[in-house]
Amino acid sequence: MQPKSFSIGIDIGGTNTVMGLVNRRGDVLAQEWLLTKEYETPGMFIQAIKEKLDPVIAGFGKEHISGIGIGAPNANYYTGEIVMAANLRWKEVIPLRRLVEAAFGLPVTITNDAKATAIGEMTYGAAKGMKDFIIVTLGTGVGSGFVVNGQLIYGHDGFAGELGHVIVARGGRSCGCGRRGCLETYTSATGIVRTATEILERLAHGQEIPEQKDWLLAVWNAKGSVSSSEIHKAALAGDPVALEVFEFTGKILGEVLADMVAITSPEAIIFFGGLAKAGAFILDPVRRHMEENLLAVFRNKVNIILSGLEECDAAILGAAALSW
Amino acid sequence: MQPKSFSIGIDIGGTNTVMGLVNRRGDVLAQEWLLTKEYETPGMFIQAIKEKLDPVIAGFGKEHISGIGIGAPNANYYTGEIVMAANLRWKEVIPLRRLVEAAFGLPVTITNDAKATAIGEMTYGAAKGMKDFIIVTLGTGVGSGFVVNGQLIYGHDGFAGELGHVIVARGGRSCGCGRRGCLETYTSATGIVRTATEILERLAHGQEIPEQKDWLLAVWNAKGSVSSSEIHKAALAGDPVALEVFEFTGKILGEVLADMVAITSPEAIIFFGGLAKAGAFILDPVRRHMEENLLAVFRNKVNIILSGLEECDAAILGAAALSW
Repeated sequence: MQPKSFSIGIDIGGTNTVMGLVNRRGDVLAQEWLLTKEYETPGMFIQAIKEKLDPVIAGFGKEHISGIGIGAPNANYYTGEIVMAANLRWKEVIPLRRLVEAAFGLPVTITNDAKATAIGEMTYGAAKGMKDFIIVTLGTGVGSGFVVNGQLIYGHDGFAGELGHVIVARGGRSCGCGRRGCLETYTSATGIVRTATEILERLAHGQEIPEQKDWLLAVWNAKGSVSSSEIHKAALAGDPVALEVFEFTGKILGEVLADMVAITSPEAIIFFGGLAKAGAFILDPVRRHMEENLLAVFRNKVNIILSGLEECDAAILGAAALSW
Repeated sequence: MQPKSFSIGIDIGGTNTVMGLVNRRGDVLAQEWLLTKEYETPGMFIQAIKEKLDPVIAGFGKEHISGIGIGAPNANYYTGEIVMAANLRWKEVIPLRRLVEAAFGLPVTITNDAKATAIGEMTYGAAKGMKDFIIVTLGTGVGSGFVVNGQLIYGHDGFAGELGHVIVARGGRSCGCGRRGCLETYTSATGIVRTATEILERLAHGQEIPEQKDWLLAVWNAKGSVSSSEIHKAALAGDPVALEVFEFTGKILGEVLADMVAITSPEAIIFFGGLAKAGAFILDPVRRHMEENLLAVFRNKVNIILSGLEECDAAILGAAALSW
């Protein structure tokens, strides 16, 4: 029997869900998306996905599609379930694999969204040829995939690689997981907004003299909030508050990564996701603080790099690669 | 050709070096030891090992011995070297494999002492049949071996698994590695002595009212220092300072292990080494604080257990297993 030509990859994020049809060379031939948070129940969400994908499947021919791979928060490769995902509205255990198989009549494989991204990077991206690396996804939350000796770490129960829930500050910021001080409350897109908000509130209350030329403070004064992309934009303009936000964020992330290097000794740490788009603003302080905190034997050995794939593509390609 | 019947395992620790001849069933048929710190140079140390082992090798017949496996601090499986070991007097890079091969004329394999112990546990001990576990050795320092999917994590450069040098307190206690706040400055045999000393100094300076019935304080008052075995002995007698030391130590270790579980999701964490002999005094607080700090998805899943092997045997067996 001839191997099937296409595979479908679906990346479910806390904010957006992107999906695409992929060929074996890694070209994304069709792409769709929707807003994850708009759907009250997993059933309504899967129905919406089906409406997006049915025309694509019909166009390329269901008989040529090997299956569907899904990357999703807290998705378990072993059980096919999503379990207590902090960044999704559906808090119960969701038998995602079974539901999607029933809806499409195609074989379904699921894993953690960050692990799917790691597979995408390993197959088509910056980690091609690497056997030991860490992928860190900086999006709504912080995800990670640890690859050791060419294999993803799934762990005993399939839930390994939760870097975002390593505790970096005892009694620190409250996290969607119900605990306090998790990495993702500081170094995600939402985390940097919390950091900026803390600094701007302090400035606005006059505990420090604000310089009126500060653009981020002006945004804050105008509408009472700032977004992660406004923080990035402000940093590009040299805004001191925005630069302080990135320095603070990079310090926390660099310190944690120094500890992680001591555990798995990766060749590289690859950043991916919305916050990674800030490029040198985040990478430079991460690199500096990681090096300062590394055990001597690891210094100047670990590359900190950006994903080699387009944001949407990496997760889709990784998810799709699951189903080959 | 018939497989050779025996293998030699050498475990080099910061304090003691133990070595033995092992058969394929895992029986330690001959055993020797020496004090690691007594030898000024690696050459003198290897000469002393040779004097201990030559009669053993002659007795069992060199032609029946497959090789020598060595577990040592900071030993690198890939390069055969010991590199900047914090707990050895020899700070330079030592080409241990080459030196021992030259001395004995037998093939030599080396790895980190904790990794050798992990191999021993996996082959003969408490981790038999486990594919995902962490071994934590609580001795002069803190070592670790992370096993994932049945394989030890060596990492890109062979130095993975340095749990003892995860930083648990920024700017905390100074460590032999040149940094501050490493786990092993708190949760090793030497770490608990530092903790006890801090508490006893505070008591002795009268910042708190000492109860004269406290045995550990009496020891301190008599000789100005306490040992880790005296702390254990005091805990057995219900001494409040000793119990406080174990509670403090278990809290730090439990918190770090909760983070490690989030990364590799092990089935079990196995404790080994001098401090592990304190049994429930250390395991109970570790278990309690780990559970309190675990991400919900990992709670009540990870066993905290003691090594299933005699202290000397585990490291010897693990080291010896390297050379089969």
